[in-house]
Amino acid sequence: MTLTHEQSEIHASKRSALAIVDCDVHPYPRSLDEIRQHLAQPWRDRYRGGGRGFFGNPVHGSRLDSTPPNGGPPGSDPSFMRKQLIDEYGVAHAVLLPRAFCNLHPDPDFGSAIAGAFNSWLADTWLGEYNHDGVFKGSITVNHQDPQAAAREIDRWAGHPHFVQVMTDSGARAPFGQRMYYPIYEACERNGLPLAIHPGTDGMGINIQPSPGYPTHYIEWHTCLSLSFQAHLVSLITEGVFERFPGFKVVLVEGGVSWLAPLMWRLDAEWKALRSEVPWVKKSPSEYLIDHVRLTSQPLERPERNTHLINLLEAMDAEHILMFSSDYPHWDFDSPTHAFPRLPREQRERIFSRNAFEFYGIG
Amino acid sequence: MTLTHEQSEIHASKRSALAIVDCDVHPYPRSLDEIRQHLAQPWRDRYRGGGRGFFGNPVHGSRLDSTPPNGGPPGSDPSFMRKQLIDEYGVAHAVLLPRAFCNLHPDPDFGSAIAGAFNSWLADTWLGEYNHDGVFKGSITVNHQDPQAAAREIDRWAGHPHFVQVMTDSGARAPFGQRMYYPIYEACERNGLPLAIHPGTDGMGINIQPSPGYPTHYIEWHTCLSLSFQAHLVSLITEGVFERFPGFKVVLVEGGVSWLAPLMWRLDAEWKALRSEVPWVKKSPSEYLIDHVRLTSQPLERPERNTHLINLLEAMDAEHILMFSSDYPHWDFDSPTHAFPRLPREQRERIFSRNAFEFYGIG
Repeated sequence: MTLTHEQSEIHASKRSALAIVDCDVHPYPRSLDEIRQHLAQPWRDRYRGGGRGFFGNPVHGSRLDSTPPNGGPPGSDPSFMRKQLIDEYGVAHAVLLPRAFCNLHPDPDFGSAIAGAFNSWLADTWLGEYNHDGVFKGSITVNHQDPQAAAREIDRWAGHPHFVQVMTDSGARAPFGQRMYYPIYEACERNGLPLAIHPGTDGMGINIQPSPGYPTHYIEWHTCLSLSFQAHLVSLITEGVFERFPGFKVVLVEGGVSWLAPLMWRLDAEWKALRSEVPWVKKSPSEYLIDHVRLTSQPLERPERNTHLINLLEAMDAEHILMFSSDYPHWDFDSPTHAFPRLPREQRERIFSRNAFEFYGIG
Repeated sequence: MTLTHEQSEIHASKRSALAIVDCDVHPYPRSLDEIRQHLAQPWRDRYRGGGRGFFGNPVHGSRLDSTPPNGGPPGSDPSFMRKQLIDEYGVAHAVLLPRAFCNLHPDPDFGSAIAGAFNSWLADTWLGEYNHDGVFKGSITVNHQDPQAAAREIDRWAGHPHFVQVMTDSGARAPFGQRMYYPIYEACERNGLPLAIHPGTDGMGINIQPSPGYPTHYIEWHTCLSLSFQAHLVSLITEGVFERFPGFKVVLVEGGVSWLAPLMWRLDAEWKALRSEVPWVKKSPSEYLIDHVRLTSQPLERPERNTHLINLLEAMDAEHILMFSSDYPHWDFDSPTHAFPRLPREQRERIFSRNAFEFYGIG
């Protein structure tokens, strides 16, 4: 086997212990019963899982080779994930984001119950019995449709050694800068946990579709998920959330990368002209990013010419803002060895490792 | 007066007759009565103008120096516009986009009547008696909420020597790739007129707000207008509109610039994996741009480092895709002499002049 330069570098760095942190990995229950056993009645009888509605990937939702040989859906077998992801690429930590789809329920109690059940399940399994070496780090799923309940759920798990963040879906009924969400941000801040926002329930259930009307196809819906993230980020900044909660931090997961700098150029210019409308925004919008915001890398855009991407990575200060993610086991998995063009060593080390260690306070 | 290098170049190019085309200029009626006289009853009595609702610029909507000295609102005096824009910068043609706000009415007949009245008014005034030298080119306003009526309105004006495009607002109830709009695109194609999409009624009246819920402030709403354009463009491409109407062309006006390349990188990657879902998309999405899509430049994003913008202009093939616009007389006016960083001469000539001449078939 002939290794490319990139691969050689990875293999070399494995030996020299570059501790890759993969910030978007999806563990799945082997069956819905694994979740049901953590649900009280009446939810236990009512829970049917799913909830994605009509926008599922029409080709395949996961890597074709990710189905565990011993059965169960992709992402449900820790041993197989260790083989295919952790050992294969020398991953030091995988940050797990379960897909509870709790944020689309009309009934906030049902949504919060599902969130709680996924947390109990994750704590017992991937963060418990499957986690002898601490490689797995977890996310506290919350139902942002009931912010007070979400805050209680955060307090319930805070202090657990392996939950490193709170997570919710980008699908919403109001942009995330708005004040009904603040109990969640208070709870994140007081417990020192970043909030990860992950795509998944946009336009589903009770959530607004963040487009000028419903998209028609999955490719359209999926491409435009990045627009939802942009709207949430603009909302968080212009509402002054990071001034109100100086310790609050956000991770934008799987929302795209290359849009960040152009959006901030636009917003910074708007702020210069319009800051009297939002006097609580004390500094140029882009200046909030370094202290409060990280993006995960997958799906990393790859233009024909690497210089076009590398220039944008520089413009967004990717060296400090970006954190590697693979999205294992999903169909658009980004390999640690192939997703990125060649980067300077310092930048590479920060993106693949140090940024996540620092932002999550791991280890 | 000391001229910067850029200014010197502009002044030199004025002398050497670089024929600037300004692709986004807003003429206003002196009063609502100018529109009313083109409205039949019952609309004449009912017309109240406006319709922007709560999202008006809270600071100032137009350049403070753009109010005509002889009275009337900014943009309503052709002589003053000639002085302040046409003569000041040596503009060969100003493409006029009136602001009819007709696309937010619940009643499609009222909306279409307003569109028709603005067209009659524009033809009589700015494209008629004020246009002795043909400097003004116009846009046929249509009410896209009634596509059949819009198509009739296009046919009504097609062939007029100074209408060079059709225009509508980005505010909508469905993304623009969807098939209810096709009568408009057929009419554009058969008359050889591009469709300009301009911000203005997003989230207003009957239109959906293309965000995850309503934004709170004008700065948020205005910043996120570019997201609406991105969603429309993704819809147009993934629905196969440019395959169905091979002669149909679109101008994205005032929707931002720097997002284009990153969005196309994302969409091209999605298409590689998902093209079986949209088999009518025959080639990579970004390949449709050169034949079908142009962007106007204002408000041009200006990062701290010019190289970051110049790299993105190269990545989006701005030399062929971008057309200069100023948005005169609005508050965020882009000056022909100051909006852009220094560009290579050929690129500059295409963006400021030739691209528009060719795309609109002027002269």
